Amino acid sequence: MKQLRKTLKVAKKTQEKSRKAKNIIIFIGDGMGLTTITAGRIFKGQHLRHGFGEEEMLAFDEFPYTGLAKTYNVDKQVPDSAGTATAMFCGIKTDYGAIGMDTTRSKVNANQGRLKSIMDWAQAEGKRTGIVTSTRITHATPASTYARIYHRDWECDTKVPAESVGKHVDIARQLVENAPGNKFNVIMGGGLSPMGALRANEPNTVRFEGDTEKVCTRGDGRNLVQEWLKLGNNESRVFVQSQEDLSKVNFKDTEHLLGLFRNNHLTYAIARQEGEPSLKEMTLAALQVLERGDKSNGFVLMVEGGRIDQAHHQNYARAAMHEVLEFDMAVQAAMDNTNEEETLVIVTADHSHSVTLNGYPKRGADILGFANKTTELVVYETISYANGPGYYEHLANNSVGAIGAEVWLPLEEFTTNQRMSPTYRHRATIPLNDETHGGEDVIVFANGPGSDLVRGVFEQNYLAYVMSYAGCMGPAKDADDRCHAGSSGTISLNKQSFVFMGTLLLLLNLFYS
Amino acid sequence: MKQLRKTLKVAKKTQEKSRKAKNIIIFIGDGMGLTTITAGRIFKGQHLRHGFGEEEMLAFDEFPYTGLAKTYNVDKQVPDSAGTATAMFCGIKTDYGAIGMDTTRSKVNANQGRLKSIMDWAQAEGKRTGIVTSTRITHATPASTYARIYHRDWECDTKVPAESVGKHVDIARQLVENAPGNKFNVIMGGGLSPMGALRANEPNTVRFEGDTEKVCTRGDGRNLVQEWLKLGNNESRVFVQSQEDLSKVNFKDTEHLLGLFRNNHLTYAIARQEGEPSLKEMTLAALQVLERGDKSNGFVLMVEGGRIDQAHHQNYARAAMHEVLEFDMAVQAAMDNTNEEETLVIVTADHSHSVTLNGYPKRGADILGFANKTTELVVYETISYANGPGYYEHLANNSVGAIGAEVWLPLEEFTTNQRMSPTYRHRATIPLNDETHGGEDVIVFANGPGSDLVRGVFEQNYLAYVMSYAGCMGPAKDADDRCHAGSSGTISLNKQSFVFMGTLLLLLNLFYS
Repeated sequence: MKQLRKTLKVAKKTQEKSRKAKNIIIFIGDGMGLTTITAGRIFKGQHLRHGFGEEEMLAFDEFPYTGLAKTYNVDKQVPDSAGTATAMFCGIKTDYGAIGMDTTRSKVNANQGRLKSIMDWAQAEGKRTGIVTSTRITHATPASTYARIYHRDWECDTKVPAESVGKHVDIARQLVENAPGNKFNVIMGGGLSPMGALRANEPNTVRFEGDTEKVCTRGDGRNLVQEWLKLGNNESRVFVQSQEDLSKVNFKDTEHLLGLFRNNHLTYAIARQEGEPSLKEMTLAALQVLERGDKSNGFVLMVEGGRIDQAHHQNYARAAMHEVLEFDMAVQAAMDNTNEEETLVIVTADHSHSVTLNGYPKRGADILGFANKTTELVVYETISYANGPGYYEHLANNSVGAIGAEVWLPLEEFTTNQRMSPTYRHRATIPLNDETHGGEDVIVFANGPGSDLVRGVFEQNYLAYVMSYAGCMGPAKDADDRCHAGSSGTISLNKQSFVFMGTLLLLLNLFYS
Repeated sequence: MKQLRKTLKVAKKTQEKSRKAKNIIIFIGDGMGLTTITAGRIFKGQHLRHGFGEEEMLAFDEFPYTGLAKTYNVDKQVPDSAGTATAMFCGIKTDYGAIGMDTTRSKVNANQGRLKSIMDWAQAEGKRTGIVTSTRITHATPASTYARIYHRDWECDTKVPAESVGKHVDIARQLVENAPGNKFNVIMGGGLSPMGALRANEPNTVRFEGDTEKVCTRGDGRNLVQEWLKLGNNESRVFVQSQEDLSKVNFKDTEHLLGLFRNNHLTYAIARQEGEPSLKEMTLAALQVLERGDKSNGFVLMVEGGRIDQAHHQNYARAAMHEVLEFDMAVQAAMDNTNEEETLVIVTADHSHSVTLNGYPKRGADILGFANKTTELVVYETISYANGPGYYEHLANNSVGAIGAEVWLPLEEFTTNQRMSPTYRHRATIPLNDETHGGEDVIVFANGPGSDLVRGVFEQNYLAYVMSYAGCMGPAKDADDRCHAGSSGTISLNKQSFVFMGTLLLLLNLFYS
C-alpha cells in the first residue's frame, strides 16, 4: 500500500504543473558534481544499511525534472563558487571570485555592475527571505544572495584592500547595512568572527584537525550582531548561538532569526561539535520562521551544504560523503514540510570537483574502500582525486622536496583506523595544497511549480530566470499574464511563455558566445 | 530571422508531445560520461573555431529532455559495456560481461535467461532494424542488440571455451544465424575478421600506433559474409567494404546492407584511413535503407560511437575528443534527416570513465592543454585520468619496475608535436595497462515523441521500456490503448500511462534492491 502510494505520487509528479510558485527553495550542494552525487547515494545506502548501496535514492533523485547547467565563469573554464552563485542568484555570469557584480560593467565604472538577486526580487513582492549554510554566512555562496563586491575574500573590513576602501564595504557589513541582507527573515550558519562577535573560548580556525584556515576578524570594533538586533521597528528579532538556543526559539513570535553557531564554518558533519545544529535542523527552523502567521506572499530560501566542497578540497572523501548525507537529509526535511503544489524546490551544485569513482569494484563494495583486490600489483581506491594534498598523504618520503621522486605508501600499509579517520586523504595525482574544482556541467534537480523548465542543457544563470518566472518576481514576472490571474492554481502553459523562455535561453546563449 | 526560427523551434520542442514514436534511434556514446561531454563540447567549439569553446552546444545539448541513468551491473558497482548495453536494449540488468542474458536466471539453467531486445520487439511490429558502430559489429555494445551469450569475448568460435561449446554459439554466428540479427536491414562497422572475411592486406590489429589489441579469427573456416548474402528470398542484399563502395550503393533497391570496413575496429576518427566511412556517413546510409519505399511501420536504429571509450582506455584524450566530435556529427546528421514529430532520438552513454576536467584554466584555454601556468611549481593538464597507461608515458624512469619510485617528466619537456600526437597519453595516477570506467550516472538526452519520459533519475534498463512504450512494441505496447488508436498524432497523456510508467519504475527499483 505504501508502495502504491509512492507509485501514484510519482505518476502525479510527472504531470505538467502550473508554473506559479508561491515559495522557492534553492539547495546548493557546494561542489556536488555528478560523481559526488553517485558516490553519496551509494554511501547513503551503505551507511544506513539499506542494501548494496547502488540502488539507493537520494531525496532529490526522486525529483521529476533534471537538467544540466554549464558552470564556466566569464573568465574561467573551471569556475569558483562566487561566480557561479552570482550566476544562479543574480542571473548574470561574472568573473571568478566576484560576488553579485557584473564585472564586465564594473570594470568601466566602479559604481556600476552591482546586481539585484532573487532575494531583492522576492522582497519586492513581499515574500519572506532567508539563507542557511554550513559555512560562514559571509562565504561566497551565501554572500552572493545579498552582497555586491569585487572579491569573495573581503568578508571583513580588515580584508578589503586599501585601494578599495570607500568603494567597497566588506561583506559582513553589507549583510547588516543593505537590502536585501538586512531584510532577511532568516540567516543561519557559521561566521561569528567576520560579524565582530567572536567567541573567545573557541578557536578561530575551522574546528577540524588538519583544516587550519583562519577566518578574518574585524578591525573596526563593530559588533554586527548587536547592530542587527537593533534593525527595524517592533519586530521580534532573535539571535541564537547554539543548537539548544535554536530548539527553544518561539517561532510564532519570531519575524527575524539570526543563528551563528561557530566563529568560522560549522564543523564537518562527520565530527559535529556539541552545540552545533545540523543542516536539517537549521532548515526546519528556517521554514518555521518563513511560514509563520500570514504567509500569503510566500518565501524564498537558499540552503547551502557548503562543506561538501571544502572536504573535497582537502581530499577528505569520507567527510565529503557525510556532507552529502547531511545535505540530503535537509532536502528530505524540506520536502516533508512544504506543500509541493506551491513550492518550487531546486537542488543543484555550483560546480564539480576533480574526483572520480573509478576501477571495477564489486556490487556493494564499500564506496570508500578499494577498487580492486588487495592481492593485485597496485591496489587503489574507488574514490580518487586528480590533484590535492592527498598526494602527500600517500608519499612514503613525505615532503615537498620529494616531488618528482615519489615513493608511494602501499594502501595496505594504512590501518583501517587510519582510513576510517575523518581526515584521511584519498590519493591525488598532482600535489596541490588545495584540490581544485572540476569543470564539467552540474545536474539541476527540480520539483514543484515551474520545475518543468529545468531540463536539457543551459547556462547556469538561466536558473535565476526560472525562479523569477516561477516565483512571479523580478525580470521575468511580466513575461505573460500568469502572475496577475490571482491564483496559484491551474494556469496552464501558454504559447507566449514558451516563446519567452525560448527567447531567454537564446539570449543567454548569445550573451556568452 | 534564423535566430527567431531557432527560438520558436526550442519553444515548440518543450511542449508536451505525443508519446507514440514511429521511429527510434538510440545513439550510444560508449564511455561518454559527463566530463567527456563537457570537454567534448569545448573541444568542438575550439576545433571548429566557433569562440572560446565553453559556450558551444553539441547537437544533443539542444534536446529538450535530460535524465540520469544509474549504470551499475548486477555484480559490479562500476559496470562494463556488455551489462549496460543489455540493460538498455533488453530491459534487464545483468552481470558484467554478459550479452543479452539474464545471468540470474541462466545460472540455474544454461538454457534459460536468453533475452529479447528492442530489435526483436521492433521486428515483431514489422519495423525495419539496423545497427551502426565504429567498433567491430561483434563488440559488446552492438552485440547486445542481437546476441545472447555468457561472455562478450566470445566473438568467434575460437574464443568460445571448450566447456561452453554446444551451449553457446559465438557472437558472429548469432548475427547471421538467428533473429533479430539475421533480419537486420543495416549492419555497419568493423569486424571482417570475426565474420571470417579477413582482408589479408590489412593488419588484424587495430590500425593505430600503440593500440595493438588483436581481433579473433575464425577456426571453422566459415565466411559469414557469404552466408549473410544468401539469407532470405528475393531480397536485394548489398555488401560493401569501403567508403567508395558505400557511396555507390543504390539505396532504393537495397533492403539489406552489410558494411564491414576493417578487420578489427574502425580506425580512430583522428587518424581515419583511406576507405573508411565516418560515423556520419554510415548513419546517413543506414537511414536511407531504413526509410526507403514503404516506410509505414518505421524503424529502430542503434548507432554507437564506440571508440570514445577505447581512446579513454588508452588515456588518448585527444583521440577521445575527436571521437566525441565524430559522434556529435552523426547525431546532427540524424536530426537533419529525420522527422522529429515521429522519431524518438535518445543519446546516452553506457558508462563513464575515470577522467576529470580539473584545475582552473582560463576561459577559452585549450581543453587539451595545461590547467595552470607553465611557470608554476607543478604544471598539469586540464584533462587527466585516475588510472591507465598514461602513468608510464609521464615517467622519466619508464618501466614497470619503477612503480613505487617514480620520477616524473615535467610536462614542459614534452614538445608540442608530442602532445599533439593522437597517441599522446594524458597523465594517470595509478599504473594500469587499460584505464578503467567510471561509476557515476550517465546523462540521457531525448528528443521527439516519448522524450518526456526521459527525466529524473532512473535505473539504466528503464530506457528499454521507454523505447517499448514510445515505439508501441514489446512489453509496454499494451500498457494503454495508445498504440491501437491508428494515429501517430495527438493522443495525449492519460492517467493509466502515468500509473503504468510509475509502476515500471517502482518494479525496476524493487528488483535491484
